[in-house]
Amino acid sequence: MTVVKVALLGFGTVGQGVFEILENNKETLQKQIGAEVHMTSILVKNIDKQRNLPSSLRVTDRMEEVLQQNPDVIFEAINGEEPARKYINRALEKGVSIITANKEMFAKHGRSLLNTAEKNGTAIGYEATTASGTPIIGMISKLLQMNRITKVEAILNGTSNYILTHIQEEGMSFENALSLAQSKGFAEVDPSSDLKGIDAFYKLMILSELIYGTQPKWDQVSCDGISHLTSNDFKTAGRSGKRIKLLASLEQHNNQIIARVEPKALDSNHPLFSVNGVDNAIMVDGEFTGPLTLRGPGAGKLPTASAMVEDFITAMQTRPLLQTISI
Amino acid sequence: MTVVKVALLGFGTVGQGVFEILENNKETLQKQIGAEVHMTSILVKNIDKQRNLPSSLRVTDRMEEVLQQNPDVIFEAINGEEPARKYINRALEKGVSIITANKEMFAKHGRSLLNTAEKNGTAIGYEATTASGTPIIGMISKLLQMNRITKVEAILNGTSNYILTHIQEEGMSFENALSLAQSKGFAEVDPSSDLKGIDAFYKLMILSELIYGTQPKWDQVSCDGISHLTSNDFKTAGRSGKRIKLLASLEQHNNQIIARVEPKALDSNHPLFSVNGVDNAIMVDGEFTGPLTLRGPGAGKLPTASAMVEDFITAMQTRPLLQTISI
Repeated sequence: MTVVKVALLGFGTVGQGVFEILENNKETLQKQIGAEVHMTSILVKNIDKQRNLPSSLRVTDRMEEVLQQNPDVIFEAINGEEPARKYINRALEKGVSIITANKEMFAKHGRSLLNTAEKNGTAIGYEATTASGTPIIGMISKLLQMNRITKVEAILNGTSNYILTHIQEEGMSFENALSLAQSKGFAEVDPSSDLKGIDAFYKLMILSELIYGTQPKWDQVSCDGISHLTSNDFKTAGRSGKRIKLLASLEQHNNQIIARVEPKALDSNHPLFSVNGVDNAIMVDGEFTGPLTLRGPGAGKLPTASAMVEDFITAMQTRPLLQTISI
Repeated sequence: MTVVKVALLGFGTVGQGVFEILENNKETLQKQIGAEVHMTSILVKNIDKQRNLPSSLRVTDRMEEVLQQNPDVIFEAINGEEPARKYINRALEKGVSIITANKEMFAKHGRSLLNTAEKNGTAIGYEATTASGTPIIGMISKLLQMNRITKVEAILNGTSNYILTHIQEEGMSFENALSLAQSKGFAEVDPSSDLKGIDAFYKLMILSELIYGTQPKWDQVSCDGISHLTSNDFKTAGRSGKRIKLLASLEQHNNQIIARVEPKALDSNHPLFSVNGVDNAIMVDGEFTGPLTLRGPGAGKLPTASAMVEDFITAMQTRPLLQTISI
């Protein structure tokens, strides 16, 4: 039986989700990729922490050790730019394929890493960077084969959307809605990246790179969040039957990409009007297809991990000879 | 340069759309599949009808002639069960791959044709049978690699949805809404297949085959349309803030598939509540991803043709050696 060796960087919520799905679905995976998946090592920050893991699995805080085991594919589930970028770059140069969920890192270095991957005959899957288990990247990639995309409008931050929903549908105050989001694990203790639109901005830049092959200059993108909205703003919107959403949008005019993240009052005919709670959604206007809207969970352990494992399956199916080792 | 020979069955709205997209996007296509696409023949009912087509193209009413030109791929854009099934079957047995938009034929004979295709090392693309350019089949196929699908709810008939929208949002009578749909080309002169739920039923059976590998017995599926709804039904729904939609649903309990097509009043939190006009939409509940909702045009020349051409590209990319001829 052919074996595929995989490693995992990061054992937080998403990392644990990947581990669980790989462990609990061995038969399905084997059927899909025609090979057995062996996890060889997990990179963590603190190796002394108690974890309930099989003893065959190397738990280490050193990237060298991970690479020494010669994995075919690495799942990267760390947060933030560094050391994730550095680790991924080294792995790609060694011919390892990467599946990542790291939006900040990929928004900043996606193009350069994709180039490194191409040079080394490996692949990068990044579905999980944008809208978790909702297959936005896959849908757009397929659409782009034949359709020019003329416009994108999206709700890409689940935390903001959860807060906006509770303010507008339940009449909550901003502070109470934020507290509720935090108590449910939908908002970080420091929620500023979500509330200022930065999280949505990273995802929008990943989409820009995918759709137009490039990104606008970051300082030319107007990026605004929801924290300065007043109860008056919500009342005004409500009176005309509208709902305020944190909208990320992308258009191209005369070869210039216009990208924006901003709160916008949508009327009830807008396809994103009814997207409530922590969901994400995207409206993509294709040249031939017309507008397509895809909605689904914007975060969560299993949705995000599922997106990563699906990327893994796709990578294995499209380059089976490169990435399996016969034993 | 490698050449792929294609033929087209049917030159109605969808067939013309396929012809146009293939003709007007030769460069994009060549980039996607690494081969030049040559259309060799078009099968029509009436060869005497005036058509503005290149003289290099054989226009014929005989399937033998189409097959004599040894096409690699055939686009099938005929309506109804026969002779479409017979033509496709013969083509598959000759090793030709098929891209079809024919829902009635594929609901009835999909499984048998897929088996014939497998036996002959060819492929069938059928994205366009269900919801036109909205890539439902592709999304579900990808999801199924890792996720068990626990539930499906969908709006699969654009005509009914258009009529329901105009009754509920504009206060039109059923008769006026139907006339409007007919005048806009959204409803046939004989709209009974749409209004009785039969069109949605065919698409639901295609989804059942895809998701569960089988279909329920057709006479055990409750299939109800919208023509018997009364103004009272709409008033009752409206009073509680609901909207009536023609809902096609699929669930599996104890290995039994429960499929239904029926008008149902949805409340404003339902992901299909805001799907208005001729759009189609589907909510698919995945084991790990949770509920995903995809919405887009349910009919139309270019959306449907675009789905067929995307299927063609996928078929060519996944089996390039089988289906191209070096010249």
